[in-house]
Amino acid sequence: MNLTIIGSLAFDTVHAKDASRRRILGGSGTYASISASAFSKVNLISVVGEDFDRRYIELFETRGINTSGVEVKKGKTFTWEARYDKDLCHRKTLAVSLNVFETFRPIIPKCVSSDDNLFLANIDPDLQDWIFRAMKPSKLIACDTMDVWINNKRGTLLKLLKKIHILLLNDEEARLLTGEHNLIEAASAIRKLGTKMVVIKKGEHGALFFSPGFSFVVPPYLVKSVIDPTGAGDTFAGGMLGYLSRKNKITDTDLRRSLIYGSIFGSFTVESFGVDALLKAGPTDIGKRYKTLKALTLF
Amino acid sequence: MNLTIIGSLAFDTVHAKDASRRRILGGSGTYASISASAFSKVNLISVVGEDFDRRYIELFETRGINTSGVEVKKGKTFTWEARYDKDLCHRKTLAVSLNVFETFRPIIPKCVSSDDNLFLANIDPDLQDWIFRAMKPSKLIACDTMDVWINNKRGTLLKLLKKIHILLLNDEEARLLTGEHNLIEAASAIRKLGTKMVVIKKGEHGALFFSPGFSFVVPPYLVKSVIDPTGAGDTFAGGMLGYLSRKNKITDTDLRRSLIYGSIFGSFTVESFGVDALLKAGPTDIGKRYKTLKALTLF
Repeated sequence: MNLTIIGSLAFDTVHAKDASRRRILGGSGTYASISASAFSKVNLISVVGEDFDRRYIELFETRGINTSGVEVKKGKTFTWEARYDKDLCHRKTLAVSLNVFETFRPIIPKCVSSDDNLFLANIDPDLQDWIFRAMKPSKLIACDTMDVWINNKRGTLLKLLKKIHILLLNDEEARLLTGEHNLIEAASAIRKLGTKMVVIKKGEHGALFFSPGFSFVVPPYLVKSVIDPTGAGDTFAGGMLGYLSRKNKITDTDLRRSLIYGSIFGSFTVESFGVDALLKAGPTDIGKRYKTLKALTLF
Repeated sequence: MNLTIIGSLAFDTVHAKDASRRRILGGSGTYASISASAFSKVNLISVVGEDFDRRYIELFETRGINTSGVEVKKGKTFTWEARYDKDLCHRKTLAVSLNVFETFRPIIPKCVSSDDNLFLANIDPDLQDWIFRAMKPSKLIACDTMDVWINNKRGTLLKLLKKIHILLLNDEEARLLTGEHNLIEAASAIRKLGTKMVVIKKGEHGALFFSPGFSFVVPPYLVKSVIDPTGAGDTFAGGMLGYLSRKNKITDTDLRRSLIYGSIFGSFTVESFGVDALLKAGPTDIGKRYKTLKALTLF
């Protein structure tokens, strides 16, 4: 099954530990579509400015990502700048310029069908909802979000939660959304808002998954050298949904494995700035980490 | 095999969420010996004052814990008072009175043999070392510690690390001891100090285990209602070492299972103030959580 992803394409400037990278390829759509493309055919919907490098579009295309839904608009590409603390646990956003994203109302390209699975990567819930209504998806729908939207677009987000199947967010965001500190209680509160399945991402501690049928503790793949955590959550989501999009009927075992792949893909992303390490990860590397995670958790 | 534990018996006063408990039974020796006693015969070495309630000694004895090494000294029992933040993630020690512990130099009781496994629960490293030298243990030796000793008794602790097989400590303590933020690096640094195996406890996120042969991600048992985290780490250690003390030759599988039991026993402790929930946990409850943890992690 195809996976349609709407998310941001951005130029990121990241300061982490003693190094910085300026205007590197980033954005939730970038990380999610690159990791999902390891498993399934991806249609990417996004917008960039005239300053966006053509070679990035080619990069997506060589990964089998259909970019006919990536609009090139007059103006500048979305930019984001952040600085991490020395332990890479917290970051401070220094600057955000939405630029062409500000007025973006996408046209659904012909390649996208209502039979695609849909991943609403982390962007403004108004835009997520727009896509939802334009595409009328009939299959699996997942959504990611963040603190800014929980604080400023709560109404739209709550409406969206009734229409989607999987919500992905991190522990702090789950607490912010529900007011519940305990993550089991937070997941339960989110499920009462209408979303059947919840993935709570916990960075270096892995993730937790909650569904009506079962819960799952997603182990972290232990990474010795974390360089830049940016995009790890988007990568996790992309890996998970890419894997699920290979299945016509999703079983509990598929869900468990998709979460493991999410964890593995996220572990590649943190090993370099931007998408460098993620791009280098081939099937052998992925298979190796899958086996390692089995050995790390079997008892 | 018997397990000898030296650790504190204390009266704890704990303020957590909106409730408080005054002068309840606590101390590292209490939590560790009660959980270890679910699996093996335990010899407890400790000291209490004349104010210590005789029924607590009886409580230990009914669990098959040999208390002939618990000295009753003139003076008052060790007391500790702490207040947790509302999320139960951090606590502030409000008062500590070592009392009879201050001058405690234990006499090794007859029941203790150098063939016992030894757990040096969290107390002053000088006292841990004293026991080590007096007992001349020849089997498995494990040790727990905390920030106070890492800061104030580093020399003794470092000497001790060369003599023991397993060090248990939490993530912040592992970072404090080694100066390494990344926990794989921290564990590797600890192993270079002489201790073959390291357990890094991470509270609600489970634990990590490192040995020359393999690493293991210990999943958390998800607890819906955390009341008081006090003693969870000591309980973890007791459960782990109690389980290992049932084995004559310890395999990797035994180590993995012992860590799972550590996680399970810790999950009981946090469900009540003091040892109430831990005491109530019977073999059926323990077996149920073991099965649940399997289901929570299998893929």
